[in-house]
Amino acid sequence: MEVLGTRCGSGIIPLVVLVLSPDTQEETVSWLLRRIREKQQDGGAELLVDQLSSEDVDEEKENSNIFLVAASRQRLLSGAEDLGLFKEFNDGSMRGYTCVNSHNFKEFHGDGDGFLSMAECQYIIKHELETLRAKDETHVPGYTQAKLYPGKSIIRRLQSKRILTQMFPLHDKEELKRLSFKWYKKVKTSLQPLDDIRHYYGEGLALYFGFLEYFTMALVPLAFIGMLCCQFDWKNYDKYVFFAVFNLIWCTVILELWKRCSASLAYHWGTLSRKKVFEEPRPGFHGILGFNPVTGREEPLYPSAKRQLRIYLVSLPFVLLCLYLSLYVMMIYFEMEGWTLMLHDREPTFWTTILLFIPGIIYAVVIEVMNLIYRYAAEFLTEWENHRLESSYQNHLVLKVLVFNFLNCFASLFYIAFILQDLVLLRQNLATLLITSQIINQFIEAFLPYWLQRGRNKTMMNELPLNAQVRLETNMNTYLGTFDDYLELFLLFGYVSLFSSVYPLAAVFVVLNNITEIYSDAFKMCNVFKRPFSDPAANIGIWQLAFEAMSVIAIVTNCTLISMSPHVRAYFPDSQMHLMLWTVAIEHGLLAFKFILAFLVPDVPKHIQIKLARLDFESMEALKKKRRSNFLCVSKQQQNPREVHRRVVHHFVYASLQKALTEFVVMYMLVCVV
Amino acid sequence: MEVLGTRCGSGIIPLVVLVLSPDTQEETVSWLLRRIREKQQDGGAELLVDQLSSEDVDEEKENSNIFLVAASRQRLLSGAEDLGLFKEFNDGSMRGYTCVNSHNFKEFHGDGDGFLSMAECQYIIKHELETLRAKDETHVPGYTQAKLYPGKSIIRRLQSKRILTQMFPLHDKEELKRLSFKWYKKVKTSLQPLDDIRHYYGEGLALYFGFLEYFTMALVPLAFIGMLCCQFDWKNYDKYVFFAVFNLIWCTVILELWKRCSASLAYHWGTLSRKKVFEEPRPGFHGILGFNPVTGREEPLYPSAKRQLRIYLVSLPFVLLCLYLSLYVMMIYFEMEGWTLMLHDREPTFWTTILLFIPGIIYAVVIEVMNLIYRYAAEFLTEWENHRLESSYQNHLVLKVLVFNFLNCFASLFYIAFILQDLVLLRQNLATLLITSQIINQFIEAFLPYWLQRGRNKTMMNELPLNAQVRLETNMNTYLGTFDDYLELFLLFGYVSLFSSVYPLAAVFVVLNNITEIYSDAFKMCNVFKRPFSDPAANIGIWQLAFEAMSVIAIVTNCTLISMSPHVRAYFPDSQMHLMLWTVAIEHGLLAFKFILAFLVPDVPKHIQIKLARLDFESMEALKKKRRSNFLCVSKQQQNPREVHRRVVHHFVYASLQKALTEFVVMYMLVCVV
Repeated sequence: MEVLGTRCGSGIIPLVVLVLSPDTQEETVSWLLRRIREKQQDGGAELLVDQLSSEDVDEEKENSNIFLVAASRQRLLSGAEDLGLFKEFNDGSMRGYTCVNSHNFKEFHGDGDGFLSMAECQYIIKHELETLRAKDETHVPGYTQAKLYPGKSIIRRLQSKRILTQMFPLHDKEELKRLSFKWYKKVKTSLQPLDDIRHYYGEGLALYFGFLEYFTMALVPLAFIGMLCCQFDWKNYDKYVFFAVFNLIWCTVILELWKRCSASLAYHWGTLSRKKVFEEPRPGFHGILGFNPVTGREEPLYPSAKRQLRIYLVSLPFVLLCLYLSLYVMMIYFEMEGWTLMLHDREPTFWTTILLFIPGIIYAVVIEVMNLIYRYAAEFLTEWENHRLESSYQNHLVLKVLVFNFLNCFASLFYIAFILQDLVLLRQNLATLLITSQIINQFIEAFLPYWLQRGRNKTMMNELPLNAQVRLETNMNTYLGTFDDYLELFLLFGYVSLFSSVYPLAAVFVVLNNITEIYSDAFKMCNVFKRPFSDPAANIGIWQLAFEAMSVIAIVTNCTLISMSPHVRAYFPDSQMHLMLWTVAIEHGLLAFKFILAFLVPDVPKHIQIKLARLDFESMEALKKKRRSNFLCVSKQQQNPREVHRRVVHHFVYASLQKALTEFVVMYMLVCVV
Repeated sequence: MEVLGTRCGSGIIPLVVLVLSPDTQEETVSWLLRRIREKQQDGGAELLVDQLSSEDVDEEKENSNIFLVAASRQRLLSGAEDLGLFKEFNDGSMRGYTCVNSHNFKEFHGDGDGFLSMAECQYIIKHELETLRAKDETHVPGYTQAKLYPGKSIIRRLQSKRILTQMFPLHDKEELKRLSFKWYKKVKTSLQPLDDIRHYYGEGLALYFGFLEYFTMALVPLAFIGMLCCQFDWKNYDKYVFFAVFNLIWCTVILELWKRCSASLAYHWGTLSRKKVFEEPRPGFHGILGFNPVTGREEPLYPSAKRQLRIYLVSLPFVLLCLYLSLYVMMIYFEMEGWTLMLHDREPTFWTTILLFIPGIIYAVVIEVMNLIYRYAAEFLTEWENHRLESSYQNHLVLKVLVFNFLNCFASLFYIAFILQDLVLLRQNLATLLITSQIINQFIEAFLPYWLQRGRNKTMMNELPLNAQVRLETNMNTYLGTFDDYLELFLLFGYVSLFSSVYPLAAVFVVLNNITEIYSDAFKMCNVFKRPFSDPAANIGIWQLAFEAMSVIAIVTNCTLISMSPHVRAYFPDSQMHLMLWTVAIEHGLLAFKFILAFLVPDVPKHIQIKLARLDFESMEALKKKRRSNFLCVSKQQQNPREVHRRVVHHFVYASLQKALTEFVVMYMLVCVV
């Protein structure tokens, strides 16, 4: 523990913890440490690494193969340049950091201490470790079955062979204390400290909390109007129609505006225009060794046709089968309920009253069990599909789980709404589902961890020595990413939007739920989980698509619901046909409006577009000047800049195309209406 | 005429013709020539320019202010580098040309003679002329009202003040002869010589002819099936339904595949990944002088809010008014027709039979007149909207004209189909409209110019001296771009797709029309018009959108048409409601299918994606290596490449997102169906 023993001593802070399995060969450990420490020109990662001292710890019980990784400031800065981290420049714009003009960056003082946040340093170290590649080793020393070939990521192979069991960044106790105070301990007058969250947890998580906050704020007007609707008259469908149309437009508008918000945030956090780094193949990815056609590097290749076959011939049928099963179970539930109701109606006794609840309870339990099994199956299948990149794996997993959850949550509501056509029952069921799911969620997410972590929380917040802190964090749960949190929001969004025309109060409950959600999620992040590596996201990714798909479905369902309401039917006493035609026409109009709006609203706010364009223009000019001075194509000269900023042109052309299409659709619609 | 007098002498070929108005001041002419000839370091264009000799020409009658522009090979090559022209590299990939490694490009032999095509040279000269900027002149010498300011494009100001009346590239007689032989004179066994067309006319026009050819080929199966449909039974609606569904899917598929075709062509022509050069503001653009926020250059600025106001408060209402008028005229026509029919029915005489034709003739004439007036109005309005860029101007103009033409062509058909619900009349009208419009088009486009240009054609193809050739070309018509040609294709596509379920034969007529269209357009380009400047397009731009919008509308119309057919109605004898529900369900299914397909089919073929990604990766690696060797961030080293190719990652992520969304929609659909 020469270098990493104390925090204050040399100024070098341990950043990342590596945990090897307790039975790892000595040979392997020393080889790994040597490779991590080796200079970059010798193919190493040039990082500092040391074993956690196992003084006063029972070696029998505790794993002693815990290592701390750190790096010199110089190494971190050069890593930041390699990763192309964007930082604020002196003129207020965001630029890719380079060592040569480091002193032109705003926050760079002296030798660059404090320029990179701890989360950034940890991200850099993670990247450097993951790109530590095998040279001429044919296998991991001590494990002949763990094959290596030149260029293979060592860490990935150790992970896939379960030699490296954990790799996680360390918490920073002081900063965490400050953050958690700002975030959820203080009685708040302002919003969440998003910049601090980003500073501590990285952009991906900060965007999630930003979205959660935005979504909650955006629902407040809906909740307000919903309450007004209920206040005045529960049975007046006119107001409901008005409310539903407002709701549909509102949902579209907020999703569009969120893109701009997210672009603003991502710009200020430096992830908007940052180039993505090359993603290593996933740890589990396997194939026949070949040459990557793009990089020319040796790498396992897996034919994409084979993957497609697996997806379309196995995964897709399996998912469809599960969906069918889920629907089948739902039908059984409705039949059981009908049967108990009949029994109860025939001769109502105490036992039949109890019997009435049985189908509901069984159905709820079965659904939970199915959800659980399905989740495992989906993970297994997606793993088996053998995706090369983690992002592709995640997208396929998200999709599978999303579809199933959507069906499980909403199938019974759809059945009641469109097959039984019983709007009163729909409202009751919607309210029950929404409220119970919220209660369960709040219990699982907030009270349970709070209660479980009471003890640990106290020890965590105390001033523990580094040794104990590392061991404590090693035993904390791993945060599995924002997936489940987004999924929950997605389903809540479904409750608000899909059936808003029959139950305007949904928004009120969702707002209340979200406020507690912010607190419980914040608590969870600060106390329950290991610190996650930061994830330089520029947007919320596939979830934006999912929310937009939901809002499209919502248009269809709400139009149908409105056309089914007796009050609307009263306007068309003679002709069902006319009602139907109007419904379809309005639905098409709303869909067109949605697409128009998506085209009309630029995804990036204008002032950020200009900043991006200026940056591009400047780099083009610089390149040109350099070319002129370097090469003797034309004589050296100083002339008016007269060229090329691709992005401006692109933006202009794109904007005008957008506008053009929009106008076209507007006109076409108007013509149709005329 | 020292340098440019003879073609063969010095090897320098006159490329571009500038025509100044005959009454231009001497002072202006000499200033302009000086600025064009001046060295680049002095702010000139460093081009060769000379006046066309006016020997043996009547100076009184002919304009003597005709100038020929040329450039040295060296100058052209450096211009090609500035423009970032993509040429084929030794390894078969397409790369941006640079002077330093010019000898690594495939076609570069010796001193680079023949490396650039004549069209490319002319494009370079056009660009160099357009970016010739004012230094400290406050106005054009001799014209105090033609204001200049530092950085203003001189040519643009001369154009906007009508001092420069024409600027066009010269034809190359020998190449033109070869091309026209290959293109339309030979009895063809192969397709059009697209590469030669691109070589002579540039990418924009070659893409138009490529699209025309592709579109025709794609319609052949439809035409074949359409003929089969008619062969067997004109009255059997079952086949029509089958045909319509096939048609809808086919239209979607061919539009998606065209994107891939066009990407392939654009890649091999080097325009796919080429960065767009900075577009100069249009000649007519005006505003208050200010600083461009992106470039920092002085430039007229016009607030975009003001333009938006003009668009939404004046242009949009005007267009809507015109559309309303057009509909109103149509209604009058139908009323007149009804009235004449009634008159004829009451007591049919010879005069009433003639009277029957009167409304149709009047309507046709009125439509043509309205079209003409509207076109002028649209141009005036779009000019008045004061767009900064030519591309934005074009898009807004295209949109205005597109909507009006769409309505004019199809409104009466829509009226017959959905208001009168008379499918037999619809079929008659469709056939009449399609056939007559084709005859008129063919006459105007093919026979008329052929007949008019018979004389000129002969003189053109003869070996004229340069002098006479230039004067001849100066008097030829200017080709106004592919707008009208695309518009015609767009309307034909409408006839094929919108009402395909009632008139499968439409495809046959369109195929026949397109074949003659190829010949007549080719003839027109080679003989009737001035040579146009090449336009480095990477795709067909807004027209792709327009065709896709048409195919969406076609889904709606065809589903409705099918549901209206008596044969289909017979399946639902009791319930109109059920028929309606099925129609809407199938329509939604087809729309979903369309969007799925758009997501599923990658816009760029895989092998080209890999080539692009490799190029990106190599440049990233090179940049990194350079940084390592240049800067002392880390010690000098030779290490495994371990980085970053943005595009690969982007493609992978994008592809998986696509697939994810697709699967989601597929599943959702299937669930709905279940």
